[in-house]
Amino acid sequence: MAATKYEVRPGVYYDSVVLMQLQKSLAEMPGVIDAGVVMATPANRELLESADFDLSGIAAKADDLLIVVKGVDETAAAAAVEQVDDLLKRRSAKNAGDFCPHSLAGALDYLPQSQWVLISVPGRFAAGVAGEALDLNQHVFLYSDNVPLKDEIALKHKAREKGLLVMGPDCGTAIINGIGLGFANRVRRGSIGLVAASGTGLQAVSAGIHNLGGGISQAIGTGGRDLKRDVGGVTTLQALDLLRRDGETGVIVLISKPMDPAIAPAIIDAAQNCGKPVVFNLIGYPPPGRQIDNLFFASTLSEAAVLATELSGQRLTPGQANEFESRPVKRGYLRGLFSGGTLAYEALLGLQTFLTPIYSNIPLRPEQKLSDSMTSQAHTILDLGEDEFTQGRLHPMIDNDLRLRRLRQEAADPEVGLIVLDIVLGEGAHPDPASELAPAIAEISNNSDIAVIAIVLGTDEDPQGVGGQIEKLERAGAVVKRDVSQSVAEINRRMKVPYQYEFVPVSTDGLGEGLAAVNVGLESFYDSLKAQGAQAVHVDWRPPAGGKEDLMAILARMKNL
Amino acid sequence: MAATKYEVRPGVYYDSVVLMQLQKSLAEMPGVIDAGVVMATPANRELLESADFDLSGIAAKADDLLIVVKGVDETAAAAAVEQVDDLLKRRSAKNAGDFCPHSLAGALDYLPQSQWVLISVPGRFAAGVAGEALDLNQHVFLYSDNVPLKDEIALKHKAREKGLLVMGPDCGTAIINGIGLGFANRVRRGSIGLVAASGTGLQAVSAGIHNLGGGISQAIGTGGRDLKRDVGGVTTLQALDLLRRDGETGVIVLISKPMDPAIAPAIIDAAQNCGKPVVFNLIGYPPPGRQIDNLFFASTLSEAAVLATELSGQRLTPGQANEFESRPVKRGYLRGLFSGGTLAYEALLGLQTFLTPIYSNIPLRPEQKLSDSMTSQAHTILDLGEDEFTQGRLHPMIDNDLRLRRLRQEAADPEVGLIVLDIVLGEGAHPDPASELAPAIAEISNNSDIAVIAIVLGTDEDPQGVGGQIEKLERAGAVVKRDVSQSVAEINRRMKVPYQYEFVPVSTDGLGEGLAAVNVGLESFYDSLKAQGAQAVHVDWRPPAGGKEDLMAILARMKNL
Repeated sequence: MAATKYEVRPGVYYDSVVLMQLQKSLAEMPGVIDAGVVMATPANRELLESADFDLSGIAAKADDLLIVVKGVDETAAAAAVEQVDDLLKRRSAKNAGDFCPHSLAGALDYLPQSQWVLISVPGRFAAGVAGEALDLNQHVFLYSDNVPLKDEIALKHKAREKGLLVMGPDCGTAIINGIGLGFANRVRRGSIGLVAASGTGLQAVSAGIHNLGGGISQAIGTGGRDLKRDVGGVTTLQALDLLRRDGETGVIVLISKPMDPAIAPAIIDAAQNCGKPVVFNLIGYPPPGRQIDNLFFASTLSEAAVLATELSGQRLTPGQANEFESRPVKRGYLRGLFSGGTLAYEALLGLQTFLTPIYSNIPLRPEQKLSDSMTSQAHTILDLGEDEFTQGRLHPMIDNDLRLRRLRQEAADPEVGLIVLDIVLGEGAHPDPASELAPAIAEISNNSDIAVIAIVLGTDEDPQGVGGQIEKLERAGAVVKRDVSQSVAEINRRMKVPYQYEFVPVSTDGLGEGLAAVNVGLESFYDSLKAQGAQAVHVDWRPPAGGKEDLMAILARMKNL
Repeated sequence: MAATKYEVRPGVYYDSVVLMQLQKSLAEMPGVIDAGVVMATPANRELLESADFDLSGIAAKADDLLIVVKGVDETAAAAAVEQVDDLLKRRSAKNAGDFCPHSLAGALDYLPQSQWVLISVPGRFAAGVAGEALDLNQHVFLYSDNVPLKDEIALKHKAREKGLLVMGPDCGTAIINGIGLGFANRVRRGSIGLVAASGTGLQAVSAGIHNLGGGISQAIGTGGRDLKRDVGGVTTLQALDLLRRDGETGVIVLISKPMDPAIAPAIIDAAQNCGKPVVFNLIGYPPPGRQIDNLFFASTLSEAAVLATELSGQRLTPGQANEFESRPVKRGYLRGLFSGGTLAYEALLGLQTFLTPIYSNIPLRPEQKLSDSMTSQAHTILDLGEDEFTQGRLHPMIDNDLRLRRLRQEAADPEVGLIVLDIVLGEGAHPDPASELAPAIAEISNNSDIAVIAIVLGTDEDPQGVGGQIEKLERAGAVVKRDVSQSVAEINRRMKVPYQYEFVPVSTDGLGEGLAAVNVGLESFYDSLKAQGAQAVHVDWRPPAGGKEDLMAILARMKNL
């Protein structure tokens, strides 16, 4: 009769790869039906129970190693459990030939040219190891997950002050000088630099580029939380700046996780000022357009790879690159007065990524809701064709009265720097809207430094005559665009504030050929570094104070004295 | 001293264009500073007050016409108000030469070849006129807004049963046989058919196509609420079906307003079965991909115009068109078992448009939240790399144990028809994942009719050897794809259910050259029809019972006896 045997080893630490291999070895033994070797976390217990292990009465805690074996009978199960120590011993002999120091400092004595430390120890120990690595002037690749947010913030701020990168926590992948860290596809070297908050996103795009014939200069992971408001995109901004200065990088790809809207403008702005084409995959965001100057927006990972590979064949000339840096800066808020609902919607969609805070009477997100449609706040996009404006009066495509009044109201607001409006021509619309709007625009142009952008939607066959309408508007001082995408790009150019670098630049010295790195945690990452020809040292890491939390706290306090 | 005079005319009806022109004429009179001629709705009162008119003590109601004039002094203001009747008389003489019957029936006696009625009377009267038009077997172009939702639903259901279209309410634009209805740009005729829930969206795309050298076969507006759940996309589905059968239409563009997720699958399915390329601009939605078979997804109105124009140069051959209709239908739910978070995310993003209901442990919308990660529901996409699965165990890119167990669990569920999983190769990942996954896949392939799609992410240089991995998976019976976009397209092909047409087809007889139409409401629409060479009759419409609600109710009850 089938029987289950188990063993609990309280508070011991093993590399998780070792545990996985131990589980496999046990499961393959004769007479064993199934086996589990896991840390006894609630999730793991649930998984074992759903695999028909009866764990009732087993009092293992999350920190304890739990070994369970289901055998065809008691003897088979018991025999398997008895093999555990032997199997572990055999395993630890495998890498016996390599020198494995017990500390980071020891590893760096042995490999002084190292610039990188890979950390994949359990989350609760990871911040400590990462802090130590920064103190030793090493960049950190932090694979570990379950690192507290406050530790991530502290580590990244510390790194920023020292000109070092902290990739992660929960950073699955990176490629530095052609050497993959953590999970990484083997890809050709080339001129495309990647920055990604998403591990598999980075892998999919880098593999895609390789498969399309392109190549990667550097691929930098940031960890999934880097673009959260509290972290503020520290690593993303550092990485963009590093790739901006890296001579090998011609095109940059930036792959986000769902991004905090408060962070987006800084990221976009840094990208726009980097003087290189940047392909964005803003995962889960509707793209603000297809292309805005040097920014290209992809809707899928595959498309990001295609765009980047295409762009890498045609580097921007220095002239084009400079153009992005020398545009005039316009102060003040934007006010959009639209007669077309969908044009207003598309403008808001495109601008919300750049301008913050932005309000509207047709908000895309609840926090964008304008509290009173009659009064603009900060940047505001109005659909004047909404019911609240048109009840009992004509649509603003026929009747310009409401728009003219609002135009004057906005122009009188000293906080306004730019006004955008649409002029929709065609059948049924006002027979000559430019004649009514141009005088109001001229008044603004002549008496203030507010710029006016007019989007003229029409064809050469429209009864109003699109050419004449454009001429009247331009003579009045308006900048005329023919669609929303163009006007979003123009607004972006005029409103953006040059990005201020607030950090010590990460040196480009380490970029080029070869990599020397220290590995702490998963042995398989060390094996992988060596297989790729990197110089590497594996630290034979053990939890401080044997992993006992109370002793660790005492040690930490002693260290701070 | 500046002085304001006003006049209230209770319960009178004037065409809003007449009122606008009256306001302008008054404002241009000598000694007049500003003038307002509006229905006295709360919104209009607020607008006048913000233009410094003092309306305190004026007891006009929403149904009353309010005339206010601010003059340089009392005399000037009073003189202007006195001109009101003269100005109105002069205006109404303008169209005196044309025959204007007082009823729809009278108009159709005069123009029996008419197939269309344009309605722009005030919203509370509009549904009645539209219902009358349907009874007279006319298609309806319903410009009026503020029509109750229940009336829209009733009208559209009635129209569907009769093979008639109700465009609107709040439909700003359409182009039938080259004649613009309502607001419409003058565009070349051609092979691109448009269906749009957005008026300016339709205008922007049709004008864009014209400006790029393309042309429009028919452009059908649906009204902004057509894609709401309660309306159910009636007009959109009718329009897609009509353009499918229209010989002149080679490419279809569909422009949505933010769409109810419950409606999306039917719309997408109808589009996919139409045998023609369809360009979508799903306003406000992240596109599910760039291209899925005959469906193309644009992120901006301009891009929709570019895509449609490009596609109109290269019609699909009948063979390609048939291909979309002959794919096998797969029953059962989809289960996605991903090791890559971003791949899971992109799959969910792409599939949520097609498959409903769909659940996930990384939901894009709150209602997609899987209640228990350990148990799938309906269509489910799982990220097995999430913390709930990885605490205290290795990432599924290294350790296949969890995925193998889940694969067997899903295969044992009789409701499952398709399983998709990713295999991420490269440094750091499992050295030979296919060897562990293939036997489980083969077991499923051999013992059930569940199909398995495997997304292999890797390069020819990866240590696992991408070719060998693919071969092992294919030999086990998996369909191998190389990225998420491809697999989304494949899933869509296998899971989609052919669309069932539940309505009387709208006849294509009226499509071609020339248009005969009846106009009820704004005179400017009538002028525009004639200017375009359409045959048209304007109805000299007055509100029933002089616009008095109580009398109208009595009349309606008498009519129903």
